[in-house]
Amino acid sequence: MDEFDLIDDILAILGDVATGTQVLLGPGDDCAVTRVPVGKAVASSIDTLVADVHFPARAAPELIGYRAMAVNLSDLAAMGAEPAYALLALTLPEADSGWTKQFALGVARCCREYSCSLVGGNLARGPLNITVSVHGLCGNHFLSRSGAQPGDVICVTGPLGAASQALEHPALEQQACIDDLITLAPADARYPLRRYYLPEPKLAVGKALVEIANAAIDLSDGLAADLTHVCRASGVGAELNSESIPIWQKGTLETALGAGDDYELCLSIPEEKIADAVLAARKQGGDLMPVGVIRSDPHIFLKRQGSIEEIPPEGYQHFR
Amino acid sequence: MDEFDLIDDILAILGDVATGTQVLLGPGDDCAVTRVPVGKAVASSIDTLVADVHFPARAAPELIGYRAMAVNLSDLAAMGAEPAYALLALTLPEADSGWTKQFALGVARCCREYSCSLVGGNLARGPLNITVSVHGLCGNHFLSRSGAQPGDVICVTGPLGAASQALEHPALEQQACIDDLITLAPADARYPLRRYYLPEPKLAVGKALVEIANAAIDLSDGLAADLTHVCRASGVGAELNSESIPIWQKGTLETALGAGDDYELCLSIPEEKIADAVLAARKQGGDLMPVGVIRSDPHIFLKRQGSIEEIPPEGYQHFR
Repeated sequence: MDEFDLIDDILAILGDVATGTQVLLGPGDDCAVTRVPVGKAVASSIDTLVADVHFPARAAPELIGYRAMAVNLSDLAAMGAEPAYALLALTLPEADSGWTKQFALGVARCCREYSCSLVGGNLARGPLNITVSVHGLCGNHFLSRSGAQPGDVICVTGPLGAASQALEHPALEQQACIDDLITLAPADARYPLRRYYLPEPKLAVGKALVEIANAAIDLSDGLAADLTHVCRASGVGAELNSESIPIWQKGTLETALGAGDDYELCLSIPEEKIADAVLAARKQGGDLMPVGVIRSDPHIFLKRQGSIEEIPPEGYQHFR
Repeated sequence: MDEFDLIDDILAILGDVATGTQVLLGPGDDCAVTRVPVGKAVASSIDTLVADVHFPARAAPELIGYRAMAVNLSDLAAMGAEPAYALLALTLPEADSGWTKQFALGVARCCREYSCSLVGGNLARGPLNITVSVHGLCGNHFLSRSGAQPGDVICVTGPLGAASQALEHPALEQQACIDDLITLAPADARYPLRRYYLPEPKLAVGKALVEIANAAIDLSDGLAADLTHVCRASGVGAELNSESIPIWQKGTLETALGAGDDYELCLSIPEEKIADAVLAARKQGGDLMPVGVIRSDPHIFLKRQGSIEEIPPEGYQHFR
């Protein structure tokens, strides 16, 4: 089993995922070549998952593969862009064919679900590390972090605080495959595993709100930290209302604010467009829940039981 | 010093490298957004450099940064594509501001030299790993590995076998910066360091030959192994002539054939277009040296002192 055998295994599993109507040349050459429709711009992001930093190394490789793709696609959702193609670099300690095939199955499943072609990759020997570069299409209008305006309503697309519990309770991290997890209901004790390993990039909602929202970000580090990014980029502040923050039924306000990995969107929407926005989201099967307002004072406050406190950006920082 | 301080350091060093006329949104958001000119396709590649697998971890970070960008740009050269933008994911064990700044200087220098914008990135904690995703522009015609035809002349763009000597002689791996190395002449004992850390992606030559050559690859794994990729993809074989292979003046035929990291191009060119090809390469300040011919018999032979032997694809394989 050498490098090229592993690559053949991966390509066999990818199958049609490596192709696409806009893909002129898929994996196997020095570069892939893709066509970009006239009038479209390309939104691009790169994101790394390091073993035992961003996921437990002992997790099922299928789940690791799915998660690696999904968290990257979530960056496209935050721009209101539509997935087009991705490239994946996998560094792994040894040529483990079984592991690699399961990993590829997870990657392929997520790509297929969100119509993203996987057009190229790289395989290297070293400590387990997965880096994905995703590329989506958008028009001249796209969502960014920097457009939030005082008076905007801050909304999130779903309940927060479940995903992080997958890591807080190691007993939950037992081996499980995608089919075990994908139908788990919020009341299930293992639901955090579903949220952590199978995040749902809010691509349809992001795209539906691209002309409506003033700003957006995906919630990878927690609402407090990610909203801070939006506020800093926009030169504004925010006031969150603790009572309207949707919290996973077994979670707490603290995990909803401070813990990450939920991959819901947080959007800043002009007050007069809220009704349109909710309808547009619902049309895509999505939800939109107001959690606060943008203020000009550049701090983030939390209204809680009648009092107001300033909250620090407590998100996960990799080097702290 | 946390993640965001490091990112600020890097962005300050990148300066104008993070911008570009086609860059609608640079680093700092969920995605970068770039415009693609009408009629152009995007050539994309991803490549990882793992510490102590693809470079000595103790090397000067400036050299590591330059090399990481240059070897990726070389993939664009092999397609005849023109650099447009790149994304870089850096995983490093600790928040070392000095290291990171020097690394960013090397990256920026290479990007500036080859007019590639660095529009996005990712910073994570973990074992040192650098993954770059590069994106270039090409027309409907681009070079690939699969177009070689029997009778084509196989050419390389420069002398082979020096770069790998940088690793064979550990005494040569002392700390050195870009300015120390970039002017070293082939006769200098430290020349392999220049070739290894500051490879010169043959972008101008690749682009000049995009309508002339039938196939191309960049020489990362050594002539024997990389030519094997071209032959397999094209369903052909090759006959190399040992006497015409350009070897670095202190190198051997063995290192020219079997060792990698030279990042010259290997092109398959129709015999009747060789004169045109040489002129087109020279116009770009480049060279083109015939080293053999493509044959229909799917093996690679070496003509050496009157006899012919089959050579195995001896390139470096990561998991062997």
